[in-house]
Amino acid sequence: MEVENVLHMKEGDGQSSYAKNSLLQRTMINKARPVLQESIRDLYHALQPECLMMADLGCSSGPNSLLVVSEIIDIIDEERQKFDRKCPKFGVFLNDLPGNDFSAIFNLLPSFYQSLKEEKGGDFGPCYVSGTPKSFYGRIFPDQFLHFVHSSYSVHWLSQVPRELESSTGEALNKGSIYIAKTSPPEILQAYYAQFKRDFVLFLRSQAKEMVPGGRMVLTLQGSFQRNDPDSIWELLGSTLQTMVLEQGLIEQEKLDRFNMPFYAPTVEEIKNLVEAEGSFSVNKLEAFTVDSSVDTNQNLENRAKFIAMTIRAVTESLLTTAFKEAAMDDLFLRFKIMVKERMARERSEYLNIVVSVTKRV
Amino acid sequence: MEVENVLHMKEGDGQSSYAKNSLLQRTMINKARPVLQESIRDLYHALQPECLMMADLGCSSGPNSLLVVSEIIDIIDEERQKFDRKCPKFGVFLNDLPGNDFSAIFNLLPSFYQSLKEEKGGDFGPCYVSGTPKSFYGRIFPDQFLHFVHSSYSVHWLSQVPRELESSTGEALNKGSIYIAKTSPPEILQAYYAQFKRDFVLFLRSQAKEMVPGGRMVLTLQGSFQRNDPDSIWELLGSTLQTMVLEQGLIEQEKLDRFNMPFYAPTVEEIKNLVEAEGSFSVNKLEAFTVDSSVDTNQNLENRAKFIAMTIRAVTESLLTTAFKEAAMDDLFLRFKIMVKERMARERSEYLNIVVSVTKRV
Repeated sequence: MEVENVLHMKEGDGQSSYAKNSLLQRTMINKARPVLQESIRDLYHALQPECLMMADLGCSSGPNSLLVVSEIIDIIDEERQKFDRKCPKFGVFLNDLPGNDFSAIFNLLPSFYQSLKEEKGGDFGPCYVSGTPKSFYGRIFPDQFLHFVHSSYSVHWLSQVPRELESSTGEALNKGSIYIAKTSPPEILQAYYAQFKRDFVLFLRSQAKEMVPGGRMVLTLQGSFQRNDPDSIWELLGSTLQTMVLEQGLIEQEKLDRFNMPFYAPTVEEIKNLVEAEGSFSVNKLEAFTVDSSVDTNQNLENRAKFIAMTIRAVTESLLTTAFKEAAMDDLFLRFKIMVKERMARERSEYLNIVVSVTKRV
Repeated sequence: MEVENVLHMKEGDGQSSYAKNSLLQRTMINKARPVLQESIRDLYHALQPECLMMADLGCSSGPNSLLVVSEIIDIIDEERQKFDRKCPKFGVFLNDLPGNDFSAIFNLLPSFYQSLKEEKGGDFGPCYVSGTPKSFYGRIFPDQFLHFVHSSYSVHWLSQVPRELESSTGEALNKGSIYIAKTSPPEILQAYYAQFKRDFVLFLRSQAKEMVPGGRMVLTLQGSFQRNDPDSIWELLGSTLQTMVLEQGLIEQEKLDRFNMPFYAPTVEEIKNLVEAEGSFSVNKLEAFTVDSSVDTNQNLENRAKFIAMTIRAVTESLLTTAFKEAAMDDLFLRFKIMVKERMARERSEYLNIVVSVTKRV
């Protein structure tokens, strides 16, 4: 599976679309806001750019895509008013893989521009928004093009399923799981970490070339408490797929054996070590926080399980329909929801999240 | 009608899509190639940019969108090899209105990047492509952002139907026509020219701010031999719409009375005068050439008429379905084709085209 050509958040604005099921990701953006604010303020005062060039990497589609842009603009506008300075212009580049629903974002732009004009008045910006469809594992912009880079809930997606999981003899090496599981042998964990390391270092190296010296970057991504922490959501999704193999042959065992999530949730320590080893950036802040995977714990179990199932469906459907069958999706996520609900009755279900703020070394 | 929110070339790749019916526009690009080549070569030698930043304004969708980019890259790559220089990087910005089918272009990008890599080898570029959805009548990029601007078959589209055609009393002022017609009173012609002048001067002023001193721009657009030249294609389209009012009431007379094409084909003299009066650019070259509206005159009349009808449908369908009804389109363009065919039997049908190459004054 070519992850680059397959992975995208569910397009459109239907019931199972990402646009309608991205409250979790919005929550992460909100949680990371203090770190974002500090980083943007520091950047603004340190560089005082006439036109602030920024990119959101893995912008997805739907309301979240322009949320961060709005926030960054708000922070700068507030700050420049405080110091009675002229408002900078903004060059905004929204990046995601080519399969992302860029049209949905572009259709929101006229009203986005309109509301900026109304809220900020005549001496604001202006703000110029473009979309840049390309994998961020590699170069996407000219040299020293950006002052600020943001990426929320994207860098935990790998550029490919760990290549060590595809043995040369064609044998599937992670049978019975779709990610790192409690029962996984160490090779599986090593394979995942090795792929994450390659991808993340390439990411840092590429972004470093595209940023001006003194430029800032804020990344939020899913993390793990410790390195051999299995991801209970992927375990549940794997188990759900397995029931569909066993019960009715809705999914072929062979296909499931070969399917692995192109995903890795690193530890805080891993992020710290990789950023330091790569060397282009100095770390300003590195924090972790947890969020309940259903976001709103006041809801009843059924609603919370449904929320989790819809969230996971919106982000994984493109991968699953490529690997298995489209027709099975409704059935799959109904089963998944039931398993999530059973699990939630027994134990807490939280995501650990990492937010890291770095500065491009001069 | 908000032209900015309505006008787009027919999306997708169906039978009546712009992607399948843009050979005329491709022909214009081919015809303008010598001017493009000269401009690009001059630019390359004059500025020797490390990363050549360029925009295609009104890029539309389908195969033409990346054609010009490929050509510009080819010209530069050839030139730098001739002088044994390092290949520059390319920052490419494809611009059109937000309703344009950007997804269709973005889906072509992975294979575009792949073929560049294969054809040009490892020491080429790289090339970074973004899409910028916004009206080019106004600012779309930061100051001094671009070395080169290209626009083919786009600047003859106005930002709105001439505002002088909308009288304050609400009365329709161009009844019986959808553009300048043989029988039009001088006010109609003046209204069209006034709107074109406002739009074109705003276009030049905006682009001038976005281009570096010494930057180049090549524009190709539809023109008129003389100022009071009616456009026979829009006259035929107007007549076709009129038959649908009269015959079966398929279109309301009132709606047709109020419908006008947001289009103006200027004379060579008008372009020259406006560029000189605006003052930001010096004219390097200003040429006119004709192209048969069916492109291939070796085809039989039926095929030629069909070609013209399909071309016009792909570019006007978004305007017509907004003003009238979607269901009528097949019927409308069948009638239109018949009228085109009758007209072609009697007289030649050619488009005059203007290509102008300018340099941003230092």
